[in-house]
Amino acid sequence: MAQQSKQSNLRIIPLGGLSEVGRNMTLLEWQKKILIIDIGFRMPEEDMPGVDYIIPNIDYLKNKKEEILGIVFTHGHYDHIGAVPYLLEKISTPNRQLPMFASPLTKGIILKRQEDFPHQAKLKINQVYDGSKIKLGPFFVEFFKQLHNIPDNLGLFIETPLGNILHTSDFKFDQNPVNDLPTNFEKLKEIGKRKILLLMSDSTDAEEEGHSLSEKEISENLEKIFKIAPGRIIAATFASLLNRIQQIISISEKYGRKVCLEGYSIKTNVEMSRLLGYIKAKRETFIKAKDVQNYPDSNVVILGTGAQGENEAVLMRIATRGHRFLKIKKGDTVVFSSSVIPGNERTVQIMKDEIMRQGAKVFHYKMMDIHAGGHAKSEELKEMLKIMQPKFFMPIHGQYSMLVAHSQLAKEMGIEEKNVLVAENGNVINLNQKGIFIEKEKALSNYVMIDGLGIGDVGQVVLRDRQMLAEDGMFVVVVIVDRQTGRVKGSPDIISRGFVYLRESKELLRDTRKRVIGIVERATGTGGAVNWSYIKDEIRNKIGQFLFSRTQRRPMVLPVVIEV
Amino acid sequence: MAQQSKQSNLRIIPLGGLSEVGRNMTLLEWQKKILIIDIGFRMPEEDMPGVDYIIPNIDYLKNKKEEILGIVFTHGHYDHIGAVPYLLEKISTPNRQLPMFASPLTKGIILKRQEDFPHQAKLKINQVYDGSKIKLGPFFVEFFKQLHNIPDNLGLFIETPLGNILHTSDFKFDQNPVNDLPTNFEKLKEIGKRKILLLMSDSTDAEEEGHSLSEKEISENLEKIFKIAPGRIIAATFASLLNRIQQIISISEKYGRKVCLEGYSIKTNVEMSRLLGYIKAKRETFIKAKDVQNYPDSNVVILGTGAQGENEAVLMRIATRGHRFLKIKKGDTVVFSSSVIPGNERTVQIMKDEIMRQGAKVFHYKMMDIHAGGHAKSEELKEMLKIMQPKFFMPIHGQYSMLVAHSQLAKEMGIEEKNVLVAENGNVINLNQKGIFIEKEKALSNYVMIDGLGIGDVGQVVLRDRQMLAEDGMFVVVVIVDRQTGRVKGSPDIISRGFVYLRESKELLRDTRKRVIGIVERATGTGGAVNWSYIKDEIRNKIGQFLFSRTQRRPMVLPVVIEV
Repeated sequence: MAQQSKQSNLRIIPLGGLSEVGRNMTLLEWQKKILIIDIGFRMPEEDMPGVDYIIPNIDYLKNKKEEILGIVFTHGHYDHIGAVPYLLEKISTPNRQLPMFASPLTKGIILKRQEDFPHQAKLKINQVYDGSKIKLGPFFVEFFKQLHNIPDNLGLFIETPLGNILHTSDFKFDQNPVNDLPTNFEKLKEIGKRKILLLMSDSTDAEEEGHSLSEKEISENLEKIFKIAPGRIIAATFASLLNRIQQIISISEKYGRKVCLEGYSIKTNVEMSRLLGYIKAKRETFIKAKDVQNYPDSNVVILGTGAQGENEAVLMRIATRGHRFLKIKKGDTVVFSSSVIPGNERTVQIMKDEIMRQGAKVFHYKMMDIHAGGHAKSEELKEMLKIMQPKFFMPIHGQYSMLVAHSQLAKEMGIEEKNVLVAENGNVINLNQKGIFIEKEKALSNYVMIDGLGIGDVGQVVLRDRQMLAEDGMFVVVVIVDRQTGRVKGSPDIISRGFVYLRESKELLRDTRKRVIGIVERATGTGGAVNWSYIKDEIRNKIGQFLFSRTQRRPMVLPVVIEV
Repeated sequence: MAQQSKQSNLRIIPLGGLSEVGRNMTLLEWQKKILIIDIGFRMPEEDMPGVDYIIPNIDYLKNKKEEILGIVFTHGHYDHIGAVPYLLEKISTPNRQLPMFASPLTKGIILKRQEDFPHQAKLKINQVYDGSKIKLGPFFVEFFKQLHNIPDNLGLFIETPLGNILHTSDFKFDQNPVNDLPTNFEKLKEIGKRKILLLMSDSTDAEEEGHSLSEKEISENLEKIFKIAPGRIIAATFASLLNRIQQIISISEKYGRKVCLEGYSIKTNVEMSRLLGYIKAKRETFIKAKDVQNYPDSNVVILGTGAQGENEAVLMRIATRGHRFLKIKKGDTVVFSSSVIPGNERTVQIMKDEIMRQGAKVFHYKMMDIHAGGHAKSEELKEMLKIMQPKFFMPIHGQYSMLVAHSQLAKEMGIEEKNVLVAENGNVINLNQKGIFIEKEKALSNYVMIDGLGIGDVGQVVLRDRQMLAEDGMFVVVVIVDRQTGRVKGSPDIISRGFVYLRESKELLRDTRKRVIGIVERATGTGGAVNWSYIKDEIRNKIGQFLFSRTQRRPMVLPVVIEV
């Protein structure tokens, strides 16, 4: 502690976003004053049933509320802003809301999301733009425009007492973006001349060779589909992929097609982005789902969510004939304009099959370049390294293998090996003019799980129980014992779910009941004090073994022993 | 029925393998005599917790045991032979085991697997080879060699009273296979001249452009890794990918490395294949895991299962330091020589990260062509169509979208649209000289699930319960009611798992108990007869709602009401 108070080094503490995709949150600390960059969440892994999101652990900030200077947001994707409603109150003090800074669209998305949390205090967010400069304690932050797949994305140039840090945000270079200005290389080069001590750069696509596709190419390919589609076009993407949504609307207008926006998130995102001027579209372009039938098929585009096969999303409802107004029909052309997130492939395949079975033609990104990621690939990353010429380099945003690949690129670009740091969440990174290293101290950075209203109350125990219950179900044995005689009264009750189909397992149940009675009466029949917890353990173990021997399944056995 | 007995058409009944990958089983029926091709299983989908495998529904064969002529197997992969131990007894009669035909390696793998089912009768399988001809009732079957990624794979040329059917088995064309003869195009062309009425061809890679990679290219790339790897090489693949295993052993011998085979399935597969002559290797090449440390790192290859991130497989145990003798160390080179099955990407990524974190270098198929699938891509499929010149075409083996893609290729190759049939499992396909069509009659073809010892006893009800239990856990309420007074005795017992962490939810439990007592005593307090099932319903509904309002979770609420 004594050491920390005298600190004249800069500390960087990633609480999320390293060795994972999502949950981005990083702290910069100088003499105990802390600047926060982004507060995002991530999606749960497959072995976390029932979990909605995973957010950063902010234990490190517990007794440091007063030292937090403020929060800067890079862009409006949930992996950068999504944990705000869960964490902001925990790091604010009753007297003041933390100063927050975001571009107009990012601000709009954060505030829109807050509407789902009506009990929270209203947020005040300061707007910043390309070129805005702010001072927060010892930090001067200059925001600069970076292209991504959502508009209004800002990189951060941060002057610190120690030197300059460049945080790229998520980014890609694009000379031909859609409805936006191309990457301003002049500006980047100007920044690069300011002597960058540390570059923190987006690693999501560091393992990919070459250069990301320009949005112009995507538009051209989408247009090819519009030219040949004989009937309706049903396009599915993410609600947060605002650039892709803009493209589809623009091409629809060009080809005289009306657009039916379907899905709550896509509707609200488009509405807000139009208000703020980030999506350009004529009002008369939009039609409602119930009116689609009033237009010739060749004049209709249905634009919705669900390219990942999400159960509740528009495309799945259309595909499974669960949508009130819209169904797949022969002649439809369905366009999946997004990549498939690992883990969703099978669901997407099943949905695609179902759509084809109903007679529609399907286009997806593997058949044609109708989707580009929002992240710089290795050639662009090298370009960024070349422009910024940092002394130190730290890859951010991505799985460990991506961070390692990015660190290789940095070495290729001439950065000394000892100046390249592959860090992990919870590392406390100490930076000074001479070196960069990881301190012994660690910040907690484990997963904090959100399930319904609970923040962090689903831990390993609850998850393990869910996994067990999912595998082989459960088996409750209720046995009533006469305190006087030690005999079981009546027949033990069995409640089981997810184990076997009970109606077809009468013999198994009968044998189980017999065994339960045997276990209980053997224990109570010895005379002396009855050890009820021993009886419960016996039922759990012996009945568990018995059920396994008969079925090779291990349901969770829960004994209820009642004395009367 | 009258119609069927007079049938002079051929009926084809796919019970599995269409609109899915795996579970291949097809029936050919002529005047009630039935030939079975393959009896495979598939892996469960993600929303089927606890399920081990899915096998075909053979209800169609129920009262037709006497009409089954026999079974021909194409090759030894489990999606073609895996359901034998579950289904064979059900279609055999006490008097005779069905005649079965398989190549020596396929036979070896089937018999090896039977060892896990010691109670079943010993199987007798007739060996067939490239060029073998057999007669089964009205069917003459000629087996011909097809290359795949397992040796001893046989395609089927089937003469029927109606005309000739060609079944490709899984296949790819390879002019430069490893330790095997190249595709015999002369032979295929000779068969093509025999007038093929119907071609049934493998569609797994019909959506892929171009030509599959030759195994020779894979070998060359693997050799590149052997040349530069400074320390041990740890190679992971499937136990069933015998060709890849052969390659790695051969290259190891060439570069003077010993091979440590790890994992039960890979060991037994290699052992059997060596005995049968399908894997060529010197005895002294192999070393044991405990002896690996006695050799210089640069002379060692560890070859095991686990390229899919399977929890219990060798690579995962090595990566998580759970293996008794082997751990990752700096200087190791880990080679993932298999593609990643959809659904496994995240697990593989996590394992890969863990391996890199421990200092090993990782090569996988996205970085370098060190794996090729075993299936023909579109150019090869067109070549097959060109060679066989069938009148009718029916794509088999693959998801619906793959079947559709393959049917497009057939049309491109000049097959009349009306002669191309995309069928589904359970269709009864009627073929005659003039046409091919789907009959109204359907065979059952739904999933039959294997869980432990149970065949088909896990149905939709049990699965839905497991899914519910996994999402939000369960909540058992045990309440004891005095029959005389209608009052609740003591405090209701609550047993919950997978819902919330009970120790931290005391208030919630207290409020729940209060409500349970209220519900019960309101119902019993009215005088008159007590409706116990009404009380249970009330507890289920009201407590469910209450828990949801407090947590936004929906555990399965199970009331136990006991009168004393």
